[in-house]
Amino acid sequence: MASTSYRPAAISLDADALRRYLDGPYREVRELTRRILSQPEHAPVQGLPTDEYRELVLERMRMLAAEGQTGMGFPVEYGGGGDVGASIAAFETLAHGDLSLLVKCGVQFGLWGGALLHLGTKRHHDLYLEQTIRADLPGCFAMTEIGHGSDVQSLGTTATYDPKTDEFVINTPDRAATKHYIGNAAVHGRIAAVFAQLIVGTEKPGVHAFIVPLRDADGTPLPGVTIEDCGEKIGLNGVDNGMLSFDHVRIPREALLNRYADVTPEGVYESDIENPNRRFFTMIGTLIQGRVCVGGAAGNAAKNALTIAVRHGLKRRQFGPPGGESETLLLDYRTHQRRLLPLLAKSYALHFAQEEVAAKLHVAFSGGEFSERDQRELESYAAGLKAITTWHATETIQQSREACGGFGYLAENRFAALKADTDVFTTFEGDNWILYQLVAKGLLTDYKDQFASMDQPALVRFVAGQVVETVVEKSLARQLIGALVDVLPASDDERELRDRGYQGELLRWREEHILASVARRLKSGIDNGFDPFRVFNFCQDHVIHTARAHVERKVFDAFVAGIDRCEDPQLKEALGQLCDLYALSTIEADRGWYLEHGRLTTQRSKRITTEVNLLCMDVREQARELVDAFGIPDEVLAAPIALP
Amino acid sequence: MASTSYRPAAISLDADALRRYLDGPYREVRELTRRILSQPEHAPVQGLPTDEYRELVLERMRMLAAEGQTGMGFPVEYGGGGDVGASIAAFETLAHGDLSLLVKCGVQFGLWGGALLHLGTKRHHDLYLEQTIRADLPGCFAMTEIGHGSDVQSLGTTATYDPKTDEFVINTPDRAATKHYIGNAAVHGRIAAVFAQLIVGTEKPGVHAFIVPLRDADGTPLPGVTIEDCGEKIGLNGVDNGMLSFDHVRIPREALLNRYADVTPEGVYESDIENPNRRFFTMIGTLIQGRVCVGGAAGNAAKNALTIAVRHGLKRRQFGPPGGESETLLLDYRTHQRRLLPLLAKSYALHFAQEEVAAKLHVAFSGGEFSERDQRELESYAAGLKAITTWHATETIQQSREACGGFGYLAENRFAALKADTDVFTTFEGDNWILYQLVAKGLLTDYKDQFASMDQPALVRFVAGQVVETVVEKSLARQLIGALVDVLPASDDERELRDRGYQGELLRWREEHILASVARRLKSGIDNGFDPFRVFNFCQDHVIHTARAHVERKVFDAFVAGIDRCEDPQLKEALGQLCDLYALSTIEADRGWYLEHGRLTTQRSKRITTEVNLLCMDVREQARELVDAFGIPDEVLAAPIALP
Repeated sequence: MASTSYRPAAISLDADALRRYLDGPYREVRELTRRILSQPEHAPVQGLPTDEYRELVLERMRMLAAEGQTGMGFPVEYGGGGDVGASIAAFETLAHGDLSLLVKCGVQFGLWGGALLHLGTKRHHDLYLEQTIRADLPGCFAMTEIGHGSDVQSLGTTATYDPKTDEFVINTPDRAATKHYIGNAAVHGRIAAVFAQLIVGTEKPGVHAFIVPLRDADGTPLPGVTIEDCGEKIGLNGVDNGMLSFDHVRIPREALLNRYADVTPEGVYESDIENPNRRFFTMIGTLIQGRVCVGGAAGNAAKNALTIAVRHGLKRRQFGPPGGESETLLLDYRTHQRRLLPLLAKSYALHFAQEEVAAKLHVAFSGGEFSERDQRELESYAAGLKAITTWHATETIQQSREACGGFGYLAENRFAALKADTDVFTTFEGDNWILYQLVAKGLLTDYKDQFASMDQPALVRFVAGQVVETVVEKSLARQLIGALVDVLPASDDERELRDRGYQGELLRWREEHILASVARRLKSGIDNGFDPFRVFNFCQDHVIHTARAHVERKVFDAFVAGIDRCEDPQLKEALGQLCDLYALSTIEADRGWYLEHGRLTTQRSKRITTEVNLLCMDVREQARELVDAFGIPDEVLAAPIALP
Repeated sequence: MASTSYRPAAISLDADALRRYLDGPYREVRELTRRILSQPEHAPVQGLPTDEYRELVLERMRMLAAEGQTGMGFPVEYGGGGDVGASIAAFETLAHGDLSLLVKCGVQFGLWGGALLHLGTKRHHDLYLEQTIRADLPGCFAMTEIGHGSDVQSLGTTATYDPKTDEFVINTPDRAATKHYIGNAAVHGRIAAVFAQLIVGTEKPGVHAFIVPLRDADGTPLPGVTIEDCGEKIGLNGVDNGMLSFDHVRIPREALLNRYADVTPEGVYESDIENPNRRFFTMIGTLIQGRVCVGGAAGNAAKNALTIAVRHGLKRRQFGPPGGESETLLLDYRTHQRRLLPLLAKSYALHFAQEEVAAKLHVAFSGGEFSERDQRELESYAAGLKAITTWHATETIQQSREACGGFGYLAENRFAALKADTDVFTTFEGDNWILYQLVAKGLLTDYKDQFASMDQPALVRFVAGQVVETVVEKSLARQLIGALVDVLPASDDERELRDRGYQGELLRWREEHILASVARRLKSGIDNGFDPFRVFNFCQDHVIHTARAHVERKVFDAFVAGIDRCEDPQLKEALGQLCDLYALSTIEADRGWYLEHGRLTTQRSKRITTEVNLLCMDVREQARELVDAFGIPDEVLAAPIALP
C-alpha cells in the first residue's frame, strides 16, 4: 500500500488551473498581494520584543498603503480604488502572512476607516479619509468597554451635548466604561471613532459614534484622555491594543458621525430612523464588512495550516509493512486522512461561501439592487459564516499541528503564530455564540424588519405570537414531504450517497426540522406561562443548533454553485469529490440527530461512515494539488517541513 | 432567573472537605508543593527572553530539589524519598504552576533519572543518582531522532562494541539519526542516556541505552559531540531542547545501562530475555512513569483553566431580562453551562482515574504483588489515560479561553501559557494516536505476552488466528445478554438515566461490542486474503474507537470507585451528580453509535440530552465549590479575572 495508491487515481488535477479558478474575479488583486508578501521585507518574524514588533507592523502597514494595497475599498475621490470586492480579496490574502499585520490593517482601514466612511458624511471624509487611506492618520475604533463587549447597547461612555459651546462632552463615568482592547490605541492611534450614549437635554437616543482626537503630533495624549496598554496577549502582539478613558473631553458638534442621526446647534436630536433600536442596528449593520473580512482571513489562515500538514504528511514516513521497501507515508494512514481531509474539504466549501458573501457585500456597498430584506439576510449570512469559519480555523490549525507531531511544535513551522494569532478570531468582531444567535433570530422571524434589534424575550414573544403560522408552518409542510420520502422503504437504497441532490435534501431537511421544533418549543414555553427570557435560555443550545444547521446548508449550496459554474471537467470532478466529502462528513458528525429524527436508518448511517472513508482515500490522491491550489508562495508559507 | 437559582440548591458543599478528599493519601505532599509554588520566587513570568527564562527555570528546579521536592521517588540510600506515589503526586501538583518548570523536572528526574534508575544497575546508581537527585548533574534522555519519534525500534544511532578497547562507539550515521527535541540538551545537559542500535560483532540485538557524557565542567561540548539548539517552540520555552549528534564517540563498556542485557568484555551479548522485541518492550515499559506523570499534569493544567473560566462565569454579567435589576451571569446561560460543566465533570472523572493508575504504579514499583499480566494492563491503562487526559486538557483550555472572551486572550489571565505549554502533551511521551493503538492491541490480544511488541500485521494475524475464539466470543456472549436486555420493550422506561449501574452497562456494552466487531473485521480481512497491514489500516479508525470506548469506561469505573469509597454523604452526592454528568455526556457524544447499534431508542437518546441539560443546572449550583476544591492557591492561579 505504502505510497502507491490502492485505487486508481481517477483525476489528473492541474493545481495551477484550480488556483486560478479559486482566485475568481479578483485574481490579480490576490496575485499582487501574494507577490508583496513574498518579498523579504515581509518575511515572518519570531520572538521580536513587543515594542519592536509593533513598530515593524506599522512600518509594514505603511508599505502596503504605499502600494495602494489597502485603499481599494475607499472612494476614488479620496485616493481609494472604489472596489469593495477587491479590498476584501486583498485583505483575505494578507492572512497567509503575518496576522498582526492583517489585524492592524483591519483596525486602520476596516474599523476606523469603515466607521468614518459609513457612519460619517462628506465633512468627515474631506477631513480624514485621504490621510487614513495613506496610513498617515492611525485611527481607532473605540467601541468595546471593560464592562460590555458583545452587548454594545449597554455601553457606559457618555456624549453630552452642551448647547452653550456647541460641543459634545465625552466622558467615562466608571472603570467598567473604559474602552478596552482598542487596536492602535496603546501606541500609534492619533484619533478614534468613540461609541457613546448620546445625551441631548433630557433625551437619550442611544449609542452613537464620535470622532475624538487622542494624541497630539508628538504622540502625547491630549488633555482628558487617559491611555493604558493592554499588555501581552496570546498572540497578535504586533498590534498595540490599549484602553481609553475620557474625562469630560470636549469635541465640536460636527464630530458626531452623522449619517443616520444629527444634533442641531439648538440641541434638537434628528434622525430619519425613528425607532432607536432600529437606528442602532442600522449603524451597526454598516460594520458587516469587518465580519466578512475576518471570516475570509480565518479561512485563509486555516489553508496555511492544511498546506503545511498535508505536505508534511506526503513526505514523512513512519512504520510500515514488515519487509517493505520503505515506511508508510503519514497521509496513507486512515486516521491521518480522517483527521485532515474532511477539514480540507470544508476549507474548500467555506472558500466558495466566502466568495459568495463577499460578492453580495460588493453589490450592497456599490449601490447595486439590494432590498432591505436582502441587507438583513446578508448581515445574517456574514455573521454565520464568520462563526463557522473562525471555529473551523481553530480546529484545523490544532489538528494540523498535532498531525505534524513534534515538528509542528517548533515555532519555525508556523503553527505557534497561527494558533496564537487566530485564537481570538472566534471572539472579536462578534463572539461566535452571539453571532449564531443572531442567525437563528433571522430564521425564526423570517428576517422581519429589524429582527436583530429584538432582545431574547421580544424574540420569544414574536415567535409565539406571529411566526408559528408562517415560517414554521411552511417548514412543517416541507417536513411532512420529507418524512413521506423518508418512510418509503426503498428510499434508503435508491439514493446514491454521492448524489448531490440527496445530500442537499438531507441538509435542508435538518435545518427546517430543527427550526420548526425550536419555534414550537419557544411557543409552548410562552403558552405555558413561563418567563420569555427563561424560555429562551432553556432552548439556547437548540437555537444554536438551528443556526449551525442553517449555515452548514448555506455553505453547501455555495459550494454546489461554485462547482456548477466551473467549466473544466477535471476541476469539476475534483471539486465534486470534495463537496461529497464536506456534505457527508457534515451529516456524519450529526448522525445522532438524523437517527433520532428517523431521517437515516441505522444501515444508511453506517454506510455514510464507510463512504466518508472511501472519499478520504479518493481525495488523498489529489491532496498535494489541492493544497498547492491555495496558491500560498513558499516564501510566505515559510515552514521548513512544508518546503521542498 | 439571573443569579438566583431556579432549582433549589440541594447540596451544601464544603470545598475544603472536598479538596481534602481529592488530595487523597498524598495530601501533605500536595499541600507542600502548593505552598512552594505560592512563594513569590515561583510567581508566573511573562515575556522573558528565552535565555533568561531557561536559566530561571534551572534555578527554580534547583530550589525544588533543595526542598526535597523532586527526589521523592528515588531510593532512600541515594538521598531520595523511596515513595513513587509521592513523587507522582508532587509532580502532578507542579502542573498548577509554570509548565516549563514541570517539564524540566520531568526531563531531569523522570526521564534521565528514570532511565538511570530503571535501566541501569548499581554501578550507574552509585556514580550518578545522588547528583541527579540534587539537580547537580543535568541529564538528558536521548531517544527521539529527526527520522523517528514514535517508531523507536527504527532508530538510526549506533553503538558498536570494540573489544580491543573494551568500549562502545556511539555514532550518528546520517542527519535523520540526529537526536531531536532532547530536553536539557541545548544548554544545561552534562550527560545523556542515549538510545542506540547495539552492534556486537555480527549481532544486532536492537535498541539499548548508554550513558554518554556531553559537556565538560565548563559546559563545552566534548569531542565528537555536536549540539544544536531546537530554537523557539510554541510553548515550554523555559526548557532547552536541543539536537545531539555523535561522531564515533567512545564510552566504556560499563556505560551500557545493563539491567536487562549486557555485553561481556569478550564481546558476547547476554540477556535473560531472549526475544529481542520482548526485550525492547520490557525496557520501554519501565518508562511508564513518564506517561502517568504527563497524564496527571495535563489533568491539573485543565483544572487551572476550568477554575479561571468558572470563576469568571460567576462574576461576569452580560445581557439579561429587560427591566431586570442586573444582567445575567455568564454561567447561568445554558450554552455556557454546556461548554464548561461537562468538562468539569470529566476533569473529576479523570482525577479519580489518575489516582488509581498512580496507586497501581506505586505498587508495581514498590515490589508489591504484581503479575506480568498486571504489568501489561497497567502499561495499557497508563497509555490510554495519558491520551484521553492530554486531549481533554487541549479541549478544556481552549473552551475555557473562549468562555472568557477577550479577557481570556490577555496573557495575564494565563491561557496564553496554558494553551502554548500543554499543546505538545498530546504528542510527547507517546503520540496519542499511537497510544490508543497500543490500548486496542492489549484488548484484542487479551493482554497476551508482549502484545505491545506486535506490529500491525502480526496483530492482525494473531487476532485472525487465535483470539476470535477467546476474547471475541467472550465478548459476543456478553453482547448477546446485552442485546436481550435491550430488546425488552420496557427496558428503556424502567431504567433511570441517573442509575449508575445502567450507565456502566451502556459504557461496557459499547466497549465490548466495538471490540468484537473490530476483531471480526480484522479476521474477515485475513480470511478474504488481504494483506494484514492493509487490513489493519482499513480498520484503524475503528481500532481507535475501541480504545476510546475502553478508556472512557475505565475512567467511569474509577470515578464510581472513588465515590463508593467516600464516606461524607454531601461529598458523595456532589460527586455523584458529576459522575452522572460525565457518564451521560460521554454517552450523548457517541449517541450516533448507540442508535446505529440499536442500544438506545430515539426517545431515550433525546432524553439523555435533556438529562445532561438538567445535570448542568444542578452542577452549576456547586460550580464555585467544585473548582475551589481543586485547591489551586490564588498566588499560583494568578489570573486577575479569577481572583476576588
